[in-house]
Amino acid sequence: MTEHSLWRFSRALHSAINDRQFEDLKTLIDDDVDWAIYGPIDMFPFLGARQGKDAVLDVIRQIADNFRVRRFDRETILLGVDSASSMLRYSLTALDSDKPISLRVAQFAQFKAGRLLNMRVLVDTFDLVEQALGRPIHLPKMSRVG
Amino acid sequence: MTEHSLWRFSRALHSAINDRQFEDLKTLIDDDVDWAIYGPIDMFPFLGARQGKDAVLDVIRQIADNFRVRRFDRETILLGVDSASSMLRYSLTALDSDKPISLRVAQFAQFKAGRLLNMRVLVDTFDLVEQALGRPIHLPKMSRVG
Repeated sequence: MTEHSLWRFSRALHSAINDRQFEDLKTLIDDDVDWAIYGPIDMFPFLGARQGKDAVLDVIRQIADNFRVRRFDRETILLGVDSASSMLRYSLTALDSDKPISLRVAQFAQFKAGRLLNMRVLVDTFDLVEQALGRPIHLPKMSRVG
Repeated sequence: MTEHSLWRFSRALHSAINDRQFEDLKTLIDDDVDWAIYGPIDMFPFLGARQGKDAVLDVIRQIADNFRVRRFDRETILLGVDSASSMLRYSLTALDSDKPISLRVAQFAQFKAGRLLNMRVLVDTFDLVEQALGRPIHLPKMSRVG
């Protein structure tokens, strides 16, 4: 059995973010890739939707400019033939402040001929915002019940 | 081929939330279920971790006290033998304010003998908080790049 496309892509992605090695990653992204990391784009311009290989490589460069991946753990994973989903816990360093950021991420990927065709990422964004601000945001209690 | 456990569970869950019919749901949750919806529990006490069937039924009752599901669309889905993951878009009504809330959700479920054994849910929490507050939270721009 050949290696699932997810593992190759994941290695190339982390190598791009941490070591600025983009050569492998370039060969693993489809020209027509559709990409979205949902979250507040006003605060983090590298979140949001991107279409096409150049735009996606560009946004990964922006992520590499802002974060280093210290470690990540896949808590849950499901693999299909050409697809993969996982829930991960990332330990990052924010490069501007040198602050640690710990983040839960859900990721759904679809591949075509071994190349990334679709990526959807959901982040616990409120947790991310509070960590990036370095202080809690005061919230009222909204529930009708105790 | 029998129906995947996810579909039965999903129907029972929505019937519990919208119609307060808990009978089906009770038969579809394992006694030792492990459950977590990640998010700010100070604002939403029905978020967070729960262990065991009674605690999970109780938290679903709390969700039913606070929200009605107007519609949901599964944008992505992966099914394993006893597991399932999906990215969904929910249109909810917050019952206290009668306000519409639109929410993206990633859900990872594991079943055992047709019953829910593990559920992990990630929500675009910043989006949820802003919609529940009814106003945007001002954020500074954090990126090092334009």
